[in-house]
Amino acid sequence: MTAPHRALSAQNIAAEIAGGRMTAQEALDQCKVSIDRDESTIQAFTHQPSKLLPGKGSLAGIAVGIKDVFDTYDMPTGYGSAIYENHKPVADASVVSMLRRAGATIAGKTVTTEFAWFAPGPTRNPHNPAHTPGGSSSGSAAGVAAGFFPAAIGTQTGGSIIRPAAFCGVAGYKPSFRLFPTIGMKQFSWSLDTVGFFAASVADAAFVAAACSGRDLGVDQADQTVPRFGIYRSPIDDQMAPDMADALQKATSIAKEAGASVTDVVPPEPLEKARDAHAPIQDFEAALSLADEHMRSPALLSAKLRDHLDAAAHITPETYDNARRTANHARKASRDLFSTCDALLLPSAPGTAPETLASTGDSVFNRLWTLLGMPCVSVAGLTGDNGLPLGLQIIAPFGQDKRALQAAHWLEKQICLNA
Amino acid sequence: MTAPHRALSAQNIAAEIAGGRMTAQEALDQCKVSIDRDESTIQAFTHQPSKLLPGKGSLAGIAVGIKDVFDTYDMPTGYGSAIYENHKPVADASVVSMLRRAGATIAGKTVTTEFAWFAPGPTRNPHNPAHTPGGSSSGSAAGVAAGFFPAAIGTQTGGSIIRPAAFCGVAGYKPSFRLFPTIGMKQFSWSLDTVGFFAASVADAAFVAAACSGRDLGVDQADQTVPRFGIYRSPIDDQMAPDMADALQKATSIAKEAGASVTDVVPPEPLEKARDAHAPIQDFEAALSLADEHMRSPALLSAKLRDHLDAAAHITPETYDNARRTANHARKASRDLFSTCDALLLPSAPGTAPETLASTGDSVFNRLWTLLGMPCVSVAGLTGDNGLPLGLQIIAPFGQDKRALQAAHWLEKQICLNA
Repeated sequence: MTAPHRALSAQNIAAEIAGGRMTAQEALDQCKVSIDRDESTIQAFTHQPSKLLPGKGSLAGIAVGIKDVFDTYDMPTGYGSAIYENHKPVADASVVSMLRRAGATIAGKTVTTEFAWFAPGPTRNPHNPAHTPGGSSSGSAAGVAAGFFPAAIGTQTGGSIIRPAAFCGVAGYKPSFRLFPTIGMKQFSWSLDTVGFFAASVADAAFVAAACSGRDLGVDQADQTVPRFGIYRSPIDDQMAPDMADALQKATSIAKEAGASVTDVVPPEPLEKARDAHAPIQDFEAALSLADEHMRSPALLSAKLRDHLDAAAHITPETYDNARRTANHARKASRDLFSTCDALLLPSAPGTAPETLASTGDSVFNRLWTLLGMPCVSVAGLTGDNGLPLGLQIIAPFGQDKRALQAAHWLEKQICLNA
Repeated sequence: MTAPHRALSAQNIAAEIAGGRMTAQEALDQCKVSIDRDESTIQAFTHQPSKLLPGKGSLAGIAVGIKDVFDTYDMPTGYGSAIYENHKPVADASVVSMLRRAGATIAGKTVTTEFAWFAPGPTRNPHNPAHTPGGSSSGSAAGVAAGFFPAAIGTQTGGSIIRPAAFCGVAGYKPSFRLFPTIGMKQFSWSLDTVGFFAASVADAAFVAAACSGRDLGVDQADQTVPRFGIYRSPIDDQMAPDMADALQKATSIAKEAGASVTDVVPPEPLEKARDAHAPIQDFEAALSLADEHMRSPALLSAKLRDHLDAAAHITPETYDNARRTANHARKASRDLFSTCDALLLPSAPGTAPETLASTGDSVFNRLWTLLGMPCVSVAGLTGDNGLPLGLQIIAPFGQDKRALQAAHWLEKQICLNA
């Protein structure tokens, strides 16, 4: 069962407005119609403003959902935690200011798991409300898929952008580490937390990221370059569901038929060693980032997070420093991945969205790439045996975000033509 | 004119308490006596709690001043800005939690320049109230020098720990970049902002840093190793005041007489090139970090900061990215500095504290080392022609904080024996 594809294209809306065929207010009203119709089922929002009014700039008329780990001066910001119920920040997070400055309208705050970690919120998958939308950026991904807003902001510390994008059948873009500021975000792990984007398509995500940052990130639709893909074969591949393995094979065939080279990439040893470095880095930092909440308000934490922080507080600085060294070695070794390819092609998640609302799924295919800080883009368009979306991620070297977006855009187009 | 040296030793206090010769409450009461006597002159605090009560742990009885750019749940936090007058954060900054967990008592919030940048607060130098205490961590440095608290927390983005430590004649320790978390600090520049410590002596600063982090940072008093120092000779050396040049020469003689080797180090070209990278990185990031304040509350910013952010908003991502690349090259090249020495020896500032309260002095001797993320320790004990303190800084490779502290402790001891 697949819901009608309702995601709205930010680029198309901007073009309609620029061409005088639609007003910015009409574009926002169109979002409001979808929200009023489906929000009671999807539950993507923690807060909605009473009215959506357009700004001025290249994103005028573009409604953007903001994951509720980002501060907003005019909307309550709860970080997915009972501790912050009715919390009113003084200032917007930097990325919220960047969006407003470009003319975007904040569509509302979107559901996050508790402190963007594990304990899920109420959001449902628009393709089937019995399934998780993924997390931790649950409301941002689901809201784009449901047509509530053409773009949304999320964060990824493990797999919190790429996985929900895949589960909801939309594009997800996790930029290179620290390309977008985390200022005004409630942080969990300062070496891993990464700000990113959701949109209907890769080009739409790139358009919004470029418009708010002034960076040359926009996808060039006229570019005829055919990417060289590398399939990263690793010991965790046995965790792919059969339909995900089939999807990876299908995408390979489609890419090859369209003229791309697709070759296997053997994992450099330092990268595979680094898989185990993610947890101690994340958890040591979480124990410090949430030290106050853990010390003073343990009863207001979920039992799972409280237990996790109890354990994390015993990670020694030596263990943490060793994990950071391991990650640094892997970052250097990651350059070797691209000697015979432009971008890596991997599953975004083990399979389709699990049929549960008690978990947001598994970030096993994401954590290493978050740790390495490399740009990842989830491409939609393929479906699993149950008819739910399957996502594939494109990964480029650190700092080569435009390359990742361009290659992902190319693959998305070929899948769309062939699927 | 030199004020009586009133700085309290954190290590001595802890030893007195451990030995049963003083209670933790008595140690805190001793601070309160100094505060009540001299705060009206020094003006180190933005807020003081009504009572100082001891905690439990290795820092029980140790009062710590907290620069007012760090959130505290129980004290107003103003970031040196009119925008945040009466601001009450929900949670403590991570470093505040770390101190409380180790038993420290928060002595109060200390004066910072506006957002830890330029516009000074009212704090005066305890050695001569007509002179600046330095900044931006003005109240933290002055409060240690005045005996208000044996230790304090500050931040350095340009020279905001090392310079005020030098001007106030106390020890300042700027750790390796990101060794201490900036979570819950109002950030100005996320690639530069560094959390650090002030105390009466280098060993005292190391003691507090070790106690709150669980890291092996404490100075080993029994260590007989004699460091090899390198004097970093650079084109900006002509900005040293004559008495600072004399002090550097005097410290060299003292170190040599005590058996240390002191050799000149020729600046690697990538380091000198990187001097100009500090400003675009700091300012591009400040324009994003303070985007909300700049957009919505320009009238509540100082004219100088408003103009600065106006200009900073025009720095392009390309200029910023190039500056980051230049800094990365310099970080790699900085390893070459230590082929013939263990630690560098440089002025902490051009001279003694200027006779003004309208400026906090010049960070010209600090910015490069903040940019490179290397640990810096300011050593007191020498005085200028006007009788005010002069500071020398010891710098070690990134991540070698213990080496920097140990070498600085050694030099401090020799200066104390000879001055």
